[in-house]
Amino acid sequence: MSLIVQKYGGTSMGSIERIRNVAARAAKWHRAGHQVVIVPSAMSGETNRLLDLAQQISEHASRRELDMIASTGEQVSVGLLAIALQSIGVDAISFTGWQVPVRTDNAYGKARIESIEDARVRAELDAGRVVIVTGFQGVDTGGNITTLGRGGSDTSAVAVAAALGADECQIFTDVDGVYTTDPRVVADARRLARITFEEMLEMASLGSKVLQSRSVEFAGKYQVRTRVLSSLTPPDIPVEEEARSGTLITIEEDDNMEKAVVSGIAFSRNAAKITVMNVPDRPGIAFQILGPIAAANIEVDVIIQNQSVGGMTDFSFTVPHTEFKRALDILEREVRGPLGTGDIVGDPDICKVSAVGIGMSSHAGVASTMFGALYEEGINIQMISTSEIKISVVIADKYMELAVRALHKAFGLEQEKTA
Amino acid sequence: MSLIVQKYGGTSMGSIERIRNVAARAAKWHRAGHQVVIVPSAMSGETNRLLDLAQQISEHASRRELDMIASTGEQVSVGLLAIALQSIGVDAISFTGWQVPVRTDNAYGKARIESIEDARVRAELDAGRVVIVTGFQGVDTGGNITTLGRGGSDTSAVAVAAALGADECQIFTDVDGVYTTDPRVVADARRLARITFEEMLEMASLGSKVLQSRSVEFAGKYQVRTRVLSSLTPPDIPVEEEARSGTLITIEEDDNMEKAVVSGIAFSRNAAKITVMNVPDRPGIAFQILGPIAAANIEVDVIIQNQSVGGMTDFSFTVPHTEFKRALDILEREVRGPLGTGDIVGDPDICKVSAVGIGMSSHAGVASTMFGALYEEGINIQMISTSEIKISVVIADKYMELAVRALHKAFGLEQEKTA
Repeated sequence: MSLIVQKYGGTSMGSIERIRNVAARAAKWHRAGHQVVIVPSAMSGETNRLLDLAQQISEHASRRELDMIASTGEQVSVGLLAIALQSIGVDAISFTGWQVPVRTDNAYGKARIESIEDARVRAELDAGRVVIVTGFQGVDTGGNITTLGRGGSDTSAVAVAAALGADECQIFTDVDGVYTTDPRVVADARRLARITFEEMLEMASLGSKVLQSRSVEFAGKYQVRTRVLSSLTPPDIPVEEEARSGTLITIEEDDNMEKAVVSGIAFSRNAAKITVMNVPDRPGIAFQILGPIAAANIEVDVIIQNQSVGGMTDFSFTVPHTEFKRALDILEREVRGPLGTGDIVGDPDICKVSAVGIGMSSHAGVASTMFGALYEEGINIQMISTSEIKISVVIADKYMELAVRALHKAFGLEQEKTA
Repeated sequence: MSLIVQKYGGTSMGSIERIRNVAARAAKWHRAGHQVVIVPSAMSGETNRLLDLAQQISEHASRRELDMIASTGEQVSVGLLAIALQSIGVDAISFTGWQVPVRTDNAYGKARIESIEDARVRAELDAGRVVIVTGFQGVDTGGNITTLGRGGSDTSAVAVAAALGADECQIFTDVDGVYTTDPRVVADARRLARITFEEMLEMASLGSKVLQSRSVEFAGKYQVRTRVLSSLTPPDIPVEEEARSGTLITIEEDDNMEKAVVSGIAFSRNAAKITVMNVPDRPGIAFQILGPIAAANIEVDVIIQNQSVGGMTDFSFTVPHTEFKRALDILEREVRGPLGTGDIVGDPDICKVSAVGIGMSSHAGVASTMFGALYEEGINIQMISTSEIKISVVIADKYMELAVRALHKAFGLEQEKTA
């Protein structure tokens, strides 16, 4: 017998029929002798409906009250799912975040989980029940309801799994696992049987929408064996088959680990590049340029500063496409004159393409393979940024699909014909 | 400065616009220097929508899970109302039943309030905030969410007022007070400025829909000065005017108390009468007849047993119209043969009309005035039942409006022309 935590997203909970499917799938695991904890999201559209009501009253609503309102979506979900399980003969009980309790800080709307008490959930599991816990929410030390922010249910599930020492956290989604890249861009993208936490984290932060970044951080930190798998398969597929499906995110690097140097190609578009030219190369200059940008709440992604030539350097960074004009205005007003820089130039239509892989740092050839593949397609690289497990390039947005396909092929990531 | 608890029903909370009106009305009291606690219901239709979702999954849903689901309606209401108050510059904070906490027994779906802790609410009031507390719900000693059953928000408001020692509990409804009878039946029905708890209780249990019976019991038991008033007046009518409006439910019998013997005429229709004839008059017979009826969960209202003649008696009682056939079947099967009674006869279309008044028991003339008025209209009385403060008669359903109008006139309850 093992203890399994299953997370189901809003789409999986989107109708009475789908809730019945979730119940059937969980019941199958329960009947196979496993202890099962379920963390469902709110029914799809419900959180938006609730926040829209609040928005209609005031656009500056208190975050505490927004959490009070938004948390009800998950509360309805857990109750309905408990009833669905009971109706097929499975003893089940639901808990809200404060009932467990899931303790968080008091950063309403984006709270962080601090601890989860396991006694109450464990007692119900030991009594033979399936336990259903609200995702996305917790309670602060003042007894106020908090929410973790969008996508927080993934994090809730992983955190509950960590607190219970679960054998596996299964994240059911509308894709059947993590792919070498987005199959909508590269038709022969391949599903990965395994991926490390670090790689998954890079994939998530680089634009892969499969898992929320914070949940992957959490899974890595507490070493929660996490599996991404499909909620679209028939709920009655055999447990043994489902247990091997999807993509396992793990720290294990055993013999079965795939040995590919590069695991996948991630990408994000709708970015813009800005370059401040002829910047005096002195300490604190990066802070002086990016300070006003941060103060305006504009997110900065890639940052590059070239080596100084004659005491002057060029300083480049990327911002979201929608913030391009605003960022330029701020720089012209607050940076150019005061710092005595040269022209401020930019490109509003760039994208970032990244090769991700845990084995990369020990393989010098990865960068040259990457740059060579882009060169062969005639794609100009505008910026390069590297880390232990990824190389990112910034290129013109229009070349994005072409670059992803070229890199996918260059690193041999395509579907094995015989698989 | 006084402490006011205001309760608003689902219709008053039925739209964003109406929620704004509730906020404006409460803000007016707050700005006039009063401490204000608000107990709103769920937005109209919301509780039904939630229970319908559960019903679609299973018609035998666990009551615990139904409470988990249904309680979210009020939780959304309190959050929205807090935001509405904040948006007009009034500091406000919302609490769920478990946050206060409102402690109840664990009779899910019909829980009874056992105690309310006042510290948290009082601290927020003392900090100058309007406090909004969910109606209809509480938490049991196991930390499970409970609901009080339909209409429970009235009871919540009165209980919160009792716990805080509030100066007044204001129940805002879609009528402007308690009337001598239903104005839809008697055009010149008169609004009562005051009514005692006992009279209100009889009015409520006899069919007046203004207040839920349990809330009146609670108000009487804890002597909470309770006022029924209109939520349909403009929210900005002066506080002094609103403070005198509606109907005050009170124990005070001071000089200003209206001295009428009969305060109002209540009625309930859709009932049926059943008579078991020639019942052997021996101890336990009432239990033996009504036991099977109670076991089938059929509510019994008026019960009459005539004096025995020759060791045999007739036993009559009323049941809801919809249960008439089922009750007859049960009696034929389980009572007639086993007890050796005579025929079982009935009338599926009767109603009950009652005269209610605290001064009645000391006025023998009330009964004869009542019977005389009905006689003059040619209305046959089928059953009579009396208590300290009411006389009820059971008559043919078709005479109901006629009887109510005749009694209203006979007791001189009509609107004063000069008022």
